[in-house]
Amino acid sequence: MLIECVPNVSEGRRPEIVAAMANAIRGVSGVRLLDHSSDASHNRSVFTIAGDAASVEAAVLALAERAIAAIDLRTHRGEHPRIGAVDVVPFVPIEGVTMAECVALAKKLGAEIAARFNVPVFLYEEAASSPARKNLEDIRRGEFEGLAAKMRAPEWAPDFGPAAPHASAGATVVGARMPLIAYNINLATDRLDVAKKIAAAIRQSSGGFRYVKAAGFRLEDRGIVQVSMNLTNYEKTPIFRVFETVKREAARYGVNILESEIVGLVPSAALTAAAEFYLQFEGFKADQVLENKLRQT
Amino acid sequence: MLIECVPNVSEGRRPEIVAAMANAIRGVSGVRLLDHSSDASHNRSVFTIAGDAASVEAAVLALAERAIAAIDLRTHRGEHPRIGAVDVVPFVPIEGVTMAECVALAKKLGAEIAARFNVPVFLYEEAASSPARKNLEDIRRGEFEGLAAKMRAPEWAPDFGPAAPHASAGATVVGARMPLIAYNINLATDRLDVAKKIAAAIRQSSGGFRYVKAAGFRLEDRGIVQVSMNLTNYEKTPIFRVFETVKREAARYGVNILESEIVGLVPSAALTAAAEFYLQFEGFKADQVLENKLRQT
Repeated sequence: MLIECVPNVSEGRRPEIVAAMANAIRGVSGVRLLDHSSDASHNRSVFTIAGDAASVEAAVLALAERAIAAIDLRTHRGEHPRIGAVDVVPFVPIEGVTMAECVALAKKLGAEIAARFNVPVFLYEEAASSPARKNLEDIRRGEFEGLAAKMRAPEWAPDFGPAAPHASAGATVVGARMPLIAYNINLATDRLDVAKKIAAAIRQSSGGFRYVKAAGFRLEDRGIVQVSMNLTNYEKTPIFRVFETVKREAARYGVNILESEIVGLVPSAALTAAAEFYLQFEGFKADQVLENKLRQT
Repeated sequence: MLIECVPNVSEGRRPEIVAAMANAIRGVSGVRLLDHSSDASHNRSVFTIAGDAASVEAAVLALAERAIAAIDLRTHRGEHPRIGAVDVVPFVPIEGVTMAECVALAKKLGAEIAARFNVPVFLYEEAASSPARKNLEDIRRGEFEGLAAKMRAPEWAPDFGPAAPHASAGATVVGARMPLIAYNINLATDRLDVAKKIAAAIRQSSGGFRYVKAAGFRLEDRGIVQVSMNLTNYEKTPIFRVFETVKREAARYGVNILESEIVGLVPSAALTAAAEFYLQFEGFKADQVLENKLRQT
């Protein structure tokens, strides 16, 4: 069983604190710290952890203990919106684990964070207790500074823990979601209007695919434009369908796709699905991939 | 480091002997027996083993000890060509290992088989000591029954071991090769001539791609035809190039591709390469595949 967890913590300027948090994770057996990166202007660090349910939970609790002890939101400044020292903790199913199991893990960890650190916890995305809490942006709106006032409204009672923010650590948002794929398509044109129109055509918010967020940008140094996307569920809105739709929309303006790029990590299954589509595979099964077979045996 | 090894043994009719050979492999720590299958009419069994170099070598030696003790080629009958009790042992690089390392392992194992069991060993494919020994078919021509006479010619002196066949166990062919992909493309037509012409166009033997073996067949029950292929080096002759070429050749006869299929296992990298081609990935690296990253960390 393999679960990925990507805790976002409100500290990106004091390297010794970040190192202590990374070491707290590494100290838990059964987990691997795949990556961590800090952004000083955001004053925020992102850790990527992988392991089984129990190990990942233990690693997040070890991280939370350090973070809550070291971070004081009352003096924290940074460009990125945040409501807590341990700001967001998403669990992501990777292999041999269902979304339902990740939701259960989110609830278990949420209850534990509330009980152990006296920090209110909100559940989001697949773990959300109501549609109004599905989107992280909605929960985080008003940020730490507005959280005490926001939580006085009954509809913003937390899912776990005290009814008011923790004085220094605010609140924590815990949930479960599919792996997110950061995906860009570069167009062989300098026409920003074309990139913006295509982005509008494919993103959910303006009528496009359900699991696509998209915006059009100019890549100044290269003299071209880019459709920059987040694919939030590659099983239901697959990469190849997005690519083919962008290609067709671009053709309408006489524009070709120059190239596309995956930013960061992509699950193997998302690429296999593209091979399956273009090569017209019939009856292909995941355990025909040699590496999958090796992991099973 | 992950090496696959696919020893072919000349016994496919006595289940108790096959089971003993499988158990001999399983008894070696550090290897996994991914698959084994026996064919009674061929009177032959194929084992698929994976592990690091030392473990896979130990597993093949354990298998060879059982096979050489139990099999007598003088009384062996079967449809499949063979020259030895342990007939062929190919090593295949899968992950974190080069072809050169698999060649070195083939030579090490070959020397060990010769020394331990007094069986002559021929090296083939990437491990071959001369171009004339690259193809398994050339080494095996004449089979066990013709081997003693064949080996009297100086050009058929073995790479390791005695100058004449082992009385009951014959000789063994050991080598290194890329993973082989069994790949079929089904055409939306019942015209066998089209499948045969396309097979001729794409296979190496008649001027096509270097690492493609192909033949045209009729799928009687479905009323369609198939281009059936072995892709012997997916890095140098990738699946997508073969698919696109078959598609173009078929179009010349007004025929469409109905579907394609992978038979058995395929390395993840072969599918990733197809995704990379069709999605026009720029600067994509293997360690962006989440599962690859997980294995590294």
